[in-house]
Amino acid sequence: MDKRDLEREFHMTGGVGKTSYARNSSLQKKASDDAKHITLEILQQLYKETKPKSLVIADLGCSSGPNTLSTIRDIIKAVISAHRREIPSQPLPELNFFLNDLPGNDFNSIFKTLPDFHLELKRDTNDDESPSVFIAAYPGSFYGRLFPEKTVHFIYASYSLHWLSKVPPALYDDQGKSINKGCVNICSSSPEAVSKAYYSQFKEDFSSFLWFRSKEVVAGGRMVLIVLGRKGPDHVDRGNSFFWELLARSLADLVAQVYILYRNILE
Amino acid sequence: MDKRDLEREFHMTGGVGKTSYARNSSLQKKASDDAKHITLEILQQLYKETKPKSLVIADLGCSSGPNTLSTIRDIIKAVISAHRREIPSQPLPELNFFLNDLPGNDFNSIFKTLPDFHLELKRDTNDDESPSVFIAAYPGSFYGRLFPEKTVHFIYASYSLHWLSKVPPALYDDQGKSINKGCVNICSSSPEAVSKAYYSQFKEDFSSFLWFRSKEVVAGGRMVLIVLGRKGPDHVDRGNSFFWELLARSLADLVAQVYILYRNILE
Repeated sequence: MDKRDLEREFHMTGGVGKTSYARNSSLQKKASDDAKHITLEILQQLYKETKPKSLVIADLGCSSGPNTLSTIRDIIKAVISAHRREIPSQPLPELNFFLNDLPGNDFNSIFKTLPDFHLELKRDTNDDESPSVFIAAYPGSFYGRLFPEKTVHFIYASYSLHWLSKVPPALYDDQGKSINKGCVNICSSSPEAVSKAYYSQFKEDFSSFLWFRSKEVVAGGRMVLIVLGRKGPDHVDRGNSFFWELLARSLADLVAQVYILYRNILE
Repeated sequence: MDKRDLEREFHMTGGVGKTSYARNSSLQKKASDDAKHITLEILQQLYKETKPKSLVIADLGCSSGPNTLSTIRDIIKAVISAHRREIPSQPLPELNFFLNDLPGNDFNSIFKTLPDFHLELKRDTNDDESPSVFIAAYPGSFYGRLFPEKTVHFIYASYSLHWLSKVPPALYDDQGKSINKGCVNICSSSPEAVSKAYYSQFKEDFSSFLWFRSKEVVAGGRMVLIVLGRKGPDHVDRGNSFFWELLARSLADLVAQVYILYRNILE
């Protein structure tokens, strides 16, 4: 799958059904919750230093589901509390949220919950202490430009930067055949070239990410990037590889079944 | 239907199916096309006078379908041509589009066509003459605040301001019964109080619309509002009332059928 196809087709499962991302993202919520105090501290520090009248916060890889708006809710509370500490006599800043994900993301589902979100926000804060909150969607790949020049104060990306812009081309040999037989990740049987291929693609993608963000973030702006990591130097560890190996086995089973089915039809 | 319900539930039919707005909006396209030269002239005049490095254009009631992006395409071309006339030696401005409609609008459908839209844009303009274009969605009712303070240069609303914020309360008598029996619009049998009820609701809504926009538009900004009108002083004319009367008759038939069905079941 090349970059263009991936941008067009890839997305978390939309809606609120049994298999939707909205109902299967507790792991992602845990990661975000574990790092929440860091995210909010850095945001408050930024507010203390810059005190903008209009604060722009971008969530890159926002997906759709309860996590999207729950982060926004926490951020609003954190800004209100920093404002009260720093400049309580002045009016609250306007809060602008830019939600980003690939164009196939289910933004409709987020939007449908916005009227209730705004109502709850008004209920939770006293009416005269309720800031103006504007929520916009900016669909596109974060490996390209997303926002106008020098507009964003705070960028937040949780569990999204491990999605590369494309399948690393070095995973295929000269004949276009995979060099990583039977695996969809760096597994124990993978040759060294596989981890090198992923590493080189990540390096290229992450450099693009930083380059484009450098155009969009205002001077003094901040970023919090929550990315998948591993505990030791070894590429293969239970924490990271477990799900991918289950997925690889399921895919292999599926392929085998289709193969048997076709053979039965043809023979 | 009160204001809150309407904001939540009301939208054009999404997707690209047979009954979708995308495939049933040629009338709306005609109105917009007829007024296109005015829209683009006013935009070019604005650009000539203000020459912003980053131009923000909002489409209020953008709906989903080919009309949404075709307007954007025309606007981009108009700005490029005004730029070439005025300040050809300077870099093109950034173009930011804020698409607005109610939260139930099918923004996903618009977003899915964006990768192709950007590709076509690059193909149509020479690569070094291709401006940066950012397209964002801001869902919400235009009878409330939509955008941050003093951010929008040009507001465009085509065929959307005839949708009121709610059913005019004065259409009901003290017992909550409709005073406009058998009609869903101002028809020839409507009492005078009906047109007064619509007029008073429009006045209230349009005042809110202008008030909120006055907060959002920058000094020197412009608006083009394409609204349904009529040729003569009489409320009932074929141009406006024709579709509504067909709709009223269809609704009456539907209600009669349901009534007969229930009576058959109950008897």
